[in-house]
Amino acid sequence: MSFIRNLLAARALGPADSSLKDVLVSRPGVISFAGGLPDEKAFDLAAIREIAAEVSADRSTWQYTETEGWLPLREQVAAHMSKLGVACSAANVLITQGSQQALDLVGKLLLDPGDRVLIEAPGYLGAIQAFESYEATLVPVALDDDGIIPASCDAAAQSGPAKLLYTVSTFQNPTGATLAPKRRQHLLHAAERFGGLILEDGAYHHLAYDAPAPPPLAAQDPDGRVVYMGSFSKSLLPGVRVGWIVARPEIIEHLSLLKQAGDLASNTFGQRFVATWLDAYGLTPPVDLYRTKRDLALAALQEHMPEGVTWNRPQGGFFLWLRLPEHLDAVKLARIAQQTGVSFVPGVAFGGPSNTLRFSFSQVDPDDIDEGVRRLAQAIGRALER
Amino acid sequence: MSFIRNLLAARALGPADSSLKDVLVSRPGVISFAGGLPDEKAFDLAAIREIAAEVSADRSTWQYTETEGWLPLREQVAAHMSKLGVACSAANVLITQGSQQALDLVGKLLLDPGDRVLIEAPGYLGAIQAFESYEATLVPVALDDDGIIPASCDAAAQSGPAKLLYTVSTFQNPTGATLAPKRRQHLLHAAERFGGLILEDGAYHHLAYDAPAPPPLAAQDPDGRVVYMGSFSKSLLPGVRVGWIVARPEIIEHLSLLKQAGDLASNTFGQRFVATWLDAYGLTPPVDLYRTKRDLALAALQEHMPEGVTWNRPQGGFFLWLRLPEHLDAVKLARIAQQTGVSFVPGVAFGGPSNTLRFSFSQVDPDDIDEGVRRLAQAIGRALER
Repeated sequence: MSFIRNLLAARALGPADSSLKDVLVSRPGVISFAGGLPDEKAFDLAAIREIAAEVSADRSTWQYTETEGWLPLREQVAAHMSKLGVACSAANVLITQGSQQALDLVGKLLLDPGDRVLIEAPGYLGAIQAFESYEATLVPVALDDDGIIPASCDAAAQSGPAKLLYTVSTFQNPTGATLAPKRRQHLLHAAERFGGLILEDGAYHHLAYDAPAPPPLAAQDPDGRVVYMGSFSKSLLPGVRVGWIVARPEIIEHLSLLKQAGDLASNTFGQRFVATWLDAYGLTPPVDLYRTKRDLALAALQEHMPEGVTWNRPQGGFFLWLRLPEHLDAVKLARIAQQTGVSFVPGVAFGGPSNTLRFSFSQVDPDDIDEGVRRLAQAIGRALER
Repeated sequence: MSFIRNLLAARALGPADSSLKDVLVSRPGVISFAGGLPDEKAFDLAAIREIAAEVSADRSTWQYTETEGWLPLREQVAAHMSKLGVACSAANVLITQGSQQALDLVGKLLLDPGDRVLIEAPGYLGAIQAFESYEATLVPVALDDDGIIPASCDAAAQSGPAKLLYTVSTFQNPTGATLAPKRRQHLLHAAERFGGLILEDGAYHHLAYDAPAPPPLAAQDPDGRVVYMGSFSKSLLPGVRVGWIVARPEIIEHLSLLKQAGDLASNTFGQRFVATWLDAYGLTPPVDLYRTKRDLALAALQEHMPEGVTWNRPQGGFFLWLRLPEHLDAVKLARIAQQTGVSFVPGVAFGGPSNTLRFSFSQVDPDDIDEGVRRLAQAIGRALER
C-alpha cells in the first residue's frame, strides 16, 4: 500500500511516462520525444497479416498454453540466446508477458520489504516501479557513457549485501549508454561481493546502429549469477506482449510457479505469432530507420542547441540523454516546451539530476525531428531568459 | 519464498491440475475428466479467422495499449455488466490478463502477510495460489449445493476481521454449486460484519444450461463492497488471455498502478479481437454442447456408479462434484484410475475432503463420456475391493 501512495505522489509531480496513456495519445501539434515505443509506421503490415492468418488457422492458438511458455518458442529463444553466447536450452527459458512481467516475477521471488537492489541512476522507470511494489530499498549506482561506473558499483556493494543489481547493459533506458566490455567483467566480480544476482535487461540489444552489440553479461557468467531478460516489444512488435527470462533451471521453475499464480499463462496467440515470425523472418528490426532518426536528431541538436547543453551519441536503442545548464530544471522546461509544441520526459522521472532529460527519437517522423529539436531549443532559450 | 516451498510440496503430493502442462498434454488412451478447459473443438474457426484478419489489418493492434485496457473494450464490458444489473462505466473497468491476473492484482493491493481471506472450501485452486503467494491466511468457508453455507460464513466472520471473501458465486469451480438468491443477500450483510470486500468470480456466469444465471452479487451491492471479476476464457476463447475487473473507480485506479508495475499492459491483439468479436457476435458460448455433455455425464453416472457414490446436478459450468464412500481416498483412487484409463482431480487439491473429486465434463468428447464414467466406476470398484 505504501507503494501506491508513492506512485500517486510521483504522478502528481508532473510529466513522466508513468502512464502509457500519456504516451499513446499524441496531442495535436505537439512533436513528442517522450515515448519509448517503437515506430508503428515501420511495422511490416503485409507480413504481419500473413503470419497472423497462418497462426489463426490452428485451433490450439486459441486454447491455453503452458505456464512456462509454448515449447517451440522456448526452444527458439534458447537457440537465439545460444547465438548470443549464452549456452542454454528450453529448461532455462520462461516466456513472460513482456519484459515488465519478468521484472515483476523476479521481484516477487527475491525481494522482501527492505531488501536492497542496486539500480542504475538514472534507470528504467518500469524496473523502479516493479521493485518498489515489493518495498525494496533501491540503491542508486551512477553511470556514464560507458555504463555503470565501477567505483560507484563498488561503493554500493560495500555498503551492504544486495539481492539484485539491475542493469540495461546495452543502449540503456533512459540514457542510451552501453556498458563497456572491461566494465562487464568488473560487474560480474562485484556481484560476488554484494552476494546477489545480476538482472540484465536486454530489451534494446538488437537495435545496434554502428557495430554489433557487445555480448550480454550472461554470456560471460560461469556461476549462473546473471538472470537475463529479453523482449520482442522493441525488436518485433509490442502488441503481442512477449518477453522472456533466461536463468538457471531452478530459478525458472520458481518463477514459473509465481507466473502460474500471477496470470496462469501468457497469451497463446502472441507466442505462436512470434515463433512463426522467427521461423519465417528471424529477428530483423528496422535498424536503418532508427539509425537515420538518431543521426537526424544528432545533427539537429548540433545545429539548434544553445551553448551549455550537452548530449551523448548512443550506439543503438531509442534514447539520447540531454544535459541542460546546471541551474535549469527540466520539469519547469517541460511546461515551457508545451507552449513551443514539443515534449520529453524530465530526467528526475528516472532518478536523474534535475537538469537532465530523456530524448526519445524512436517514434518521431524523420521529417519532424529537426523542427522538434528547434522547438526544444526555443523552449530552452525562453527558460534561460527567465 | 515460503509460498514456493508450499507449492513445491503440494506438487509432490500427487495428481492435481496445478500444472497446465499436465492438463494440456493428453495421455494416449486416457479419458480425462481432469481439465477445466473449454472444448477447443467447439471453437468456431471460420469466424475466428475472419475476426483475427480484421483485427490484424489495423496497425495499432501491434502497438502497446493503455494499462487500464483498450477503451472500446472497457466500454463494451461496462455495457455488458450493466445488462447483468451492475451499473457501471469504463471508469469501473480494468482489463486483465485473464482472471488469474485479477486475483493476483487484488491480492497484491489488499493483502499483507497474515491477513485473513475467507474462501470457499473446496475452492478454486488459482485463487488459493494467488492469495497464498501474498502469504495470506486462508479461512475455509463450507458450501453445499446452494453455495456458501450462511452459518459457516458467519462463524468465519465472527472469528476475526478479514480483508476479503472470495467466491465463484455461480456454477462454482470445483463443485458446480450456485449460491442461492436468499444466501446472496446474507453474504452481502456478512461482508459488513467481517469488514472486508467480496471478490466475486463470474468466470462461468454465461454457461447456464437450465435457466438464466442469477444476477451477480455485484448487482445487489449499494456500498461498493463487491469487486467483480469476469473472463472471456470460458465463454469465448482462452488463448487471448482477456479478463476484467469491475469495481469502484478508486480501486480500479490502484489496481491499474499495480498492473503497470506488473506487466505494463495486456496484449493489444487479444483485446481488439474480443472487442471486435463482441461487436459482431456478442457473447454466445456453445451452451448446447456443454449441456449435452453434462446430461451424458449425469446419465452415465446414474448407470455405472456403485452404491455409496453421490454427485450433484450443476445448473451450468464445467464441473460435477463426486463424493465417494467415506473411507475411500480420491488420491489413491487416481492411481488406480490410471490403470483403467481415466483421470480426474482429487478434491483435496481444492481443500475438499479426501473422499471427493472434481469431475470436469467440458473437454471430453460426448462419445467418450459413457466409457470414461464406466472406467471410473471400474476403478472405484477395484478400490472398494482393497
